Amino acid sequence: MELLYQGKTKDIYQGLNQSMILKFKDDVTGTDGKFDPGANQIGLSIEGMGNLNLRLTTLFFQLLNQSGIPTHFIDSNLNENTMTVKSASVFGKGLEVITRFKATGSFIRRYGEYIEDGAKLNNYVEFTLKDDKRQDPLVTKDGLIALNILTNKQYEILIDLNIQIAQIIQKKLAEHGFDLYDIKLEFGYVNHPDNIILIDEISGGNMRVYKEGQLVDPIELAQYFNDL
Amino acid sequence: MELLYQGKTKDIYQGLNQSMILKFKDDVTGTDGKFDPGANQIGLSIEGMGNLNLRLTTLFFQLLNQSGIPTHFIDSNLNENTMTVKSASVFGKGLEVITRFKATGSFIRRYGEYIEDGAKLNNYVEFTLKDDKRQDPLVTKDGLIALNILTNKQYEILIDLNIQIAQIIQKKLAEHGFDLYDIKLEFGYVNHPDNIILIDEISGGNMRVYKEGQLVDPIELAQYFNDL
Repeated sequence: MELLYQGKTKDIYQGLNQSMILKFKDDVTGTDGKFDPGANQIGLSIEGMGNLNLRLTTLFFQLLNQSGIPTHFIDSNLNENTMTVKSASVFGKGLEVITRFKATGSFIRRYGEYIEDGAKLNNYVEFTLKDDKRQDPLVTKDGLIALNILTNKQYEILIDLNIQIAQIIQKKLAEHGFDLYDIKLEFGYVNHPDNIILIDEISGGNMRVYKEGQLVDPIELAQYFNDL
Repeated sequence: MELLYQGKTKDIYQGLNQSMILKFKDDVTGTDGKFDPGANQIGLSIEGMGNLNLRLTTLFFQLLNQSGIPTHFIDSNLNENTMTVKSASVFGKGLEVITRFKATGSFIRRYGEYIEDGAKLNNYVEFTLKDDKRQDPLVTKDGLIALNILTNKQYEILIDLNIQIAQIIQKKLAEHGFDLYDIKLEFGYVNHPDNIILIDEISGGNMRVYKEGQLVDPIELAQYFNDL
């Protein structure tokens, strides 16, 4: 298989018929050896993490497909730790769309003068640019349009899709007693720029989940759903 | 006079009849002894700068008042380096509204992956929170509303006012061969939260002005208009 891109937590290979194959690795992002979904560097490597992340991602993508959300998911191979997906174009050089149900992490680092950690937010959505060198800067709607990353229409579609997806994941997690604080998703498009689909993965590394007021480690979250 | 607040470049005193008196100082913001309007700390002190800034601010406020823009300006005393203004409430703990005609400064530090320094922008407006500790973080429209800093209506009024003001200043500067790249303004309200007026000052420290492709020092800009 031809390696297209070596990512922090996944490697991407060319597949057949405009598909791509994502190989899940055991690395997770973090700071000082501690898991941090907001971090830009690899924090630690945990044996079996790639497989657990793929299982959780597969569960969520199947749930979303059943709910009618367009995604890049085709199928998963749990023995090979790979997921076959539709090949999609990304916006600009990659965009992260974050829905926040409760204020924490970088939101508090920016706006801690105005809001308490853990305070409820009303489906607040924000966009950051994938740019490690510039610490994934926040960008406004007007900025996304000025930089020719999104059109007004794409922005509206993304806001709507992101909230829908976040609410589906939130509901699923809540059924098992988990409280979703925030979730960071990536999107691309196929065939037409307005034909937007969810890409990348959906695992503990994309979200902050709490249980009884305590942050749940992504390995613990993935293990929980694997053991069901 | 009762001192209400000691600022970086101005001290604020209580005036009569709900007015305040701004005393312009000779300090300007900067980094490593060099002027930088985006900096949060005092970079240097220049004798006579307070008086020059007050003169330029007075010129711009008078121009804006003639153009029908609501401002806090009442009058200036050039011998005392003071300006008497209407006492206004600020939004949250202070908000800066930036109109950018050309990309430079923090816009490039954030979005340099997508745009060249000096590239034209189409009346792009952004908001930052006045919070030295957190380096004046950028905040989106949804963020301003989630943090209860602005209502939707106030946001729209501010965007509109800021562009109008920026265009008036841009035109005035252009008449003298100066090219306005960006301008940072502050607003408050009197009597009713939607009765929004321009506050603070308008001098070289609020804007980046170029002449023949070179950044113009704020003292040079103030001196130029003083010598007219």
